[in-house]
Amino acid sequence: MKITIWNEFVHERENEAVRELYPDGIHQTIAGFLSTQAGWKVGTATLDQPEHGLTEEVLAATDVLLWWGHMAHAKVSDEVAERVQRRVLEGMGFLPLHSAHYAKPFKLLLGTTCSLKWRDDGEKERLWNLMPGHPIAAGIGDFFELHEEMYGEPFGIPEPEELIFVSWFQGGEVFRSGCTWRRGHGKIFYFRPGHETFPSFHDDNVQRVITNGVKWAQPTVNILDDCPHADPLEPIAPAS
Amino acid sequence: MKITIWNEFVHERENEAVRELYPDGIHQTIAGFLSTQAGWKVGTATLDQPEHGLTEEVLAATDVLLWWGHMAHAKVSDEVAERVQRRVLEGMGFLPLHSAHYAKPFKLLLGTTCSLKWRDDGEKERLWNLMPGHPIAAGIGDFFELHEEMYGEPFGIPEPEELIFVSWFQGGEVFRSGCTWRRGHGKIFYFRPGHETFPSFHDDNVQRVITNGVKWAQPTVNILDDCPHADPLEPIAPAS
Amino acid sequence: MKITIWNEFVHERENEAVRELYPDGIHQTIAGFLSTQAGWKVGTATLDQPEHGLTEEVLAATDVLLWWGHMAHAKVSDEVAERVQRRVLEGMGFLPLHSAHYAKPFKLLLGTTCSLKWRDDGEKERLWNLMPGHPIAAGIGDFFELHEEMYGEPFGIPEPEELIFVSWFQGGEVFRSGCTWRRGHGKIFYFRPGHETFPSFHDDNVQRVITNGVKWAQPTVNILDDCPHADPLEPIAPAS
Amino acid sequence: MKITIWNEFVHERENEAVRELYPDGIHQTIAGFLSTQAGWKVGTATLDQPEHGLTEEVLAATDVLLWWGHMAHAKVSDEVAERVQRRVLEGMGFLPLHSAHYAKPFKLLLGTTCSLKWRDDGEKERLWNLMPGHPIAAGIGDFFELHEEMYGEPFGIPEPEELIFVSWFQGGEVFRSGCTWRRGHGKIFYFRPGHETFPSFHDDNVQRVITNGVKWAQPTVNILDDCPHADPLEPIAPAS
Repeated sequence: MKITIWNEFVHERENEAVRELYPDGIHQTIAGFLSTQAGWKVGTATLDQPEHGLTEEVLAATDVLLWWGHMAHAKVSDEVAERVQRRVLEGMGFLPLHSAHYAKPFKLLLGTTCSLKWRDDGEKERLWNLMPGHPIAAGIGDFFELHEEMYGEPFGIPEPEELIFVSWFQGGEVFRSGCTWRRGHGKIFYFRPGHETFPSFHDDNVQRVITNGVKWAQPTVNILDDCPHADPLEPIAPAS
Repeated sequence: MKITIWNEFVHERENEAVRELYPDGIHQTIAGFLSTQAGWKVGTATLDQPEHGLTEEVLAATDVLLWWGHMAHAKVSDEVAERVQRRVLEGMGFLPLHSAHYAKPFKLLLGTTCSLKWRDDGEKERLWNLMPGHPIAAGIGDFFELHEEMYGEPFGIPEPEELIFVSWFQGGEVFRSGCTWRRGHGKIFYFRPGHETFPSFHDDNVQRVITNGVKWAQPTVNILDDCPHADPLEPIAPAS
Repeated sequence: MKITIWNEFVHERENEAVRELYPDGIHQTIAGFLSTQAGWKVGTATLDQPEHGLTEEVLAATDVLLWWGHMAHAKVSDEVAERVQRRVLEGMGFLPLHSAHYAKPFKLLLGTTCSLKWRDDGEKERLWNLMPGHPIAAGIGDFFELHEEMYGEPFGIPEPEELIFVSWFQGGEVFRSGCTWRRGHGKIFYFRPGHETFPSFHDDNVQRVITNGVKWAQPTVNILDDCPHADPLEPIAPAS
Repeated sequence: MKITIWNEFVHERENEAVRELYPDGIHQTIAGFLSTQAGWKVGTATLDQPEHGLTEEVLAATDVLLWWGHMAHAKVSDEVAERVQRRVLEGMGFLPLHSAHYAKPFKLLLGTTCSLKWRDDGEKERLWNLMPGHPIAAGIGDFFELHEEMYGEPFGIPEPEELIFVSWFQGGEVFRSGCTWRRGHGKIFYFRPGHETFPSFHDDNVQRVITNGVKWAQPTVNILDDCPHADPLEPIAPAS
């Protein structure tokens, strides 16, 4: 399995506090814990690369794509965003993380506003496990806790097909923090945690959920839909 | 309630056989049977009008939009397509008809390829009613029949929230012909029949389903999602 | 429209504190605010009546049934529980309230354990409105608050078709507090609040949601499924 | 993985034509092709055994249960049916086949009538593959054909979470022939073919789909839901 982690990689260069948490960028931290999985090849791509590092070749060879973006969503070219969308429809798994709720490919795939409430005060978040039998929740107990940015409902998404985690926030809100959808032949897992000013990607539970999510999103096929003419399989008698 | 019927209105001008079926355009035929509903104001819009007839003002005043397009999907401007998408997310009902499976606003809202098989031989289609208790199927019996273009599975859509009709085709295929989704605050009903070379929009059952669909899709709200900062409702103790 | 409110009506007779809140029983309090709706006929039924007040005749004449039960679930006869299930499948709306998550007809209709966590400490509950455009949430703001028994996830239900409310509890839990499902031709709305020791059924928002829910669950049909032999509609050629 | 195949095993003993197709019973035919899968232990159980062969011990050791029944549904004891239901909720996979649409455990798990139309004329059935990327459809092409009993819509089931196959019947009907649901921690796959008077369980495609379905339904957990009291995780201030 070949995994690509995309990161806009801007905060880490501009903000000392973020750089201390993720010295080589969030993508490298994620690559670090994913690459310890037996047999997984992990690559990275960033906004500043040609075609944001997501050329046709790179995407064609990617089984599961993770995406972290925040302040530079608008700098992602429409062409690359649509290329990612198309690859998901062909079967590539896709894990948008945290502020990627507003990433172009995620919005293209879901079709909705993906809006939410937010508050960046580092309060306590408790993620409740609603589906202890789901492979994405494997090894996760009844709940786990972080200190994080708050995201609050209503979250402008199509009804998730599976609602795996719901967050409780100390400040009084709730949020659908782990959601899956199938789009085309690809599987999508949105996972809420991961604000750049918090060490969430160093958290054991977060790492486990992301690892589980990548496994779950592994493609089974690579199918490019077309719209073919079809000859009849049975004799037909047109209207007279 | 204010309804707008959009039609690309190209076949009727270029093809004598189509013009005989729909002399003033498919939109006027639909407008005809919908405007007999008590209290409904019905307007039309076409591709060749400025902004395709779908200005901000027209859409802001539209409760339910019907859409017929086929050969000129690509001539619809992205700006107008995104404007329609946004209005659906705000609450406007949306009924894409037949070949509008490939209409830009429908694809933007669903996020998938919306591809299918097709064969234009005018064979028998039998639409089975899977949800006799659904308001869109009110007055429809166990099934009804047309002679139509064939559309076949797989249909490249997200799993419908409600699957109301499934078609049997004489040539051997099946198709999910009546599907609903909610997107944002708006309701979407895709209805399969209505190829331009067949008199389907003159059919009593087709007219009844479309009329039912418009009623069902009537908006309850008009909400433009934003992404607000939220002050805490409870005292919070940030991580030390 | 004819509404029937079923209540086991035990706590109110045995517990002075409950009786002070609901002197004539929870059913009468609900009947009180529902009967002010124009044109609605509201009846009640209780456990101690013959057939628990839910005879074939009463149910046949009921459009929407509300259900409150808690300590006496096991005293409801299987025959009456199955009768309620059958009427929902025929089209009757059904609103199980609070501890009716464990009511026999609800469990029969959903097929799952319907288990949950609980704590009866009267803490603050904040119900977030995830679907401001849904008719059940009409007139409800971003959230509303109660002091109530806590119910916590995981809630052992099939994935709701619509998740309208999610509760935040002061003690740290979350819960899917407003859920809909369709079963057969009937609509089901589970609504969480309403522990007998709290005045929730006197709360304006609770009353509004229940009233909205009854409107939403109004049946469109009354269909008793059978399993008929069907003659072929097309000529068939059996395998040789 | 340990698989149990349950068969009422009545037709094969009473009907010569059925016995010719399935001399040792339908269960043994299924056991035959499943046991060739590396590492799968396959057992069988029949109606006439004590507790229908589905003791607590057998079910506790079963990962995936297949079920074929038809004329003797009513002879299955409620106790065993509820035991099967409970094991599915704990995580056991469940594959009801063909006329098991009316099997007690299936109806208990779905909560609906599970009714349908039928005609036993051995006509052509074409099963269309709607989800070529789904593991249950692995190795299945665009469609496959059988000669079978007809099942027709409306099928009285909750909306499937995944609709994998839809059948076209020569006589004019359609049917949702491959449907999945999750209930509790278990996965359910209903698969339509398999009338006792046809050799469908000897068909390569049918065998492949059933084998795929068993793999897909493999449990990840074994959890018996309870309904625990929960101490607060955060300080609470009850209403004054």
